[in-house]
Amino acid sequence: MRNIKMTVEYEGTNYLGWQRQPQGMTIQEAIETAIERLTGEKTNVVGAGRTDTGVHARGQTANFRTDSALAVERFQGALNALLPRDMAVREAMEVPESFNSRFSALSKHYRYMIWNDRVRPALDRNFCWHVRWPLDPERARAGAGALLGTHDFSCFESANAESRTTVRTVTRAEWRADDDRRVTFDIEADAFLYNMVRAIVGTLTDVARGKISPERVAEIMASKDRGQAGRTAPPQGLCLMEVRYPEEFVWRPPE
Amino acid sequence: MRNIKMTVEYEGTNYLGWQRQPQGMTIQEAIETAIERLTGEKTNVVGAGRTDTGVHARGQTANFRTDSALAVERFQGALNALLPRDMAVREAMEVPESFNSRFSALSKHYRYMIWNDRVRPALDRNFCWHVRWPLDPERARAGAGALLGTHDFSCFESANAESRTTVRTVTRAEWRADDDRRVTFDIEADAFLYNMVRAIVGTLTDVARGKISPERVAEIMASKDRGQAGRTAPPQGLCLMEVRYPEEFVWRPPE
Repeated sequence: MRNIKMTVEYEGTNYLGWQRQPQGMTIQEAIETAIERLTGEKTNVVGAGRTDTGVHARGQTANFRTDSALAVERFQGALNALLPRDMAVREAMEVPESFNSRFSALSKHYRYMIWNDRVRPALDRNFCWHVRWPLDPERARAGAGALLGTHDFSCFESANAESRTTVRTVTRAEWRADDDRRVTFDIEADAFLYNMVRAIVGTLTDVARGKISPERVAEIMASKDRGQAGRTAPPQGLCLMEVRYPEEFVWRPPE
Repeated sequence: MRNIKMTVEYEGTNYLGWQRQPQGMTIQEAIETAIERLTGEKTNVVGAGRTDTGVHARGQTANFRTDSALAVERFQGALNALLPRDMAVREAMEVPESFNSRFSALSKHYRYMIWNDRVRPALDRNFCWHVRWPLDPERARAGAGALLGTHDFSCFESANAESRTTVRTVTRAEWRADDDRRVTFDIEADAFLYNMVRAIVGTLTDVARGKISPERVAEIMASKDRGQAGRTAPPQGLCLMEVRYPEEFVWRPPE
């Protein structure tokens, strides 16, 4: 069987997250339905990250097996014609049998957007968290420094999660005030615990608004206690930007 | 009567443009309805630009008269609580009787976004024009140069428009390739003819894809013939960014 890797962009607003479930439509089900219409095959589309309801992706990565002989470019074009408008396959390539979009990933990059203004956003309402308190980027940056490196991040893991180990390596944690209203937080790690990015954003927001000190972030991490960290920031500000893989699994644009 | 000026942000996707009409809901009607619920008064909200169906605004400006004694900050807060989520009043201030958001304007700034990729956009689908042909930014910039200054722009005016004069002064015309997919065109002028920005974008896209030469733009303008210019680019890429006014009408954030 062939193994097809896809880079997928979607707006999560109208879906119950990535993973198939009986309560309603998910991204995974929409893609599997499109593949079935195209090939007649029932497939299992494996996603690199199981994004929650309302979470978006510019570079989710997924793979599936098929017996279809269709050229991979034709696959991509046909899927984009079948998928709903809030979803698109950005890239598609055939990969070795060994590739699994979740377990082959080297790292993931998430971006979180905050709308920091006394007035609620209209155009960006489905793509950010509206925070009215003034946020000091210098304080947030000082707090974010504690995240870098290899640590036990269990203080940022939601209850009932099933991770075997709670140690992760964060290689990027950048808080940026883009203009007088838009705040962007970029974080990259080898892997993430459940709701980890949103709990980190909730905590750094407490730092930025002066509720807790930047030094407090390291103490919270040392406590390994979810109750010490800040609230879970809402899903619509979060976007899975990119999943990185070893060279042999990376798509190159045609010459 | 008091005269209230508002800066309004909205997503135009779900409205039949700015101006009230019998066929369906418009931005103007939504705002007038909210004001009526708040004050009990039927008002006429005058907008600086009559944006079409699907056109967005970050800085549309509008004004209305009221006998209400409500403080202007309370007006803004109450309207934002009453307005639909895809609309927000960013600023509100009381202005002199003489102010009219359309006729007092010194200039308007529009931004047009093109998604230049072989794959259709998902997250940005309601905010850009998807153009598959490769676009050369250098060619577009050379073509845009001809727009600067005071000219007769009748070649970019849609038929059946009612402008008394077709001479306008363009003070900014910047074509920028933001990354490998997103193209932004910023244009500012004292005023615009009907569909002028979209006809200019259609024409510059013809230049950028190599269909016509950059020098051709000046010839098209000299022809004063709408048939010589390019197609009207679709509405969803267009956004009214800002309307400029004389100093005495400009809102200043509270200290």
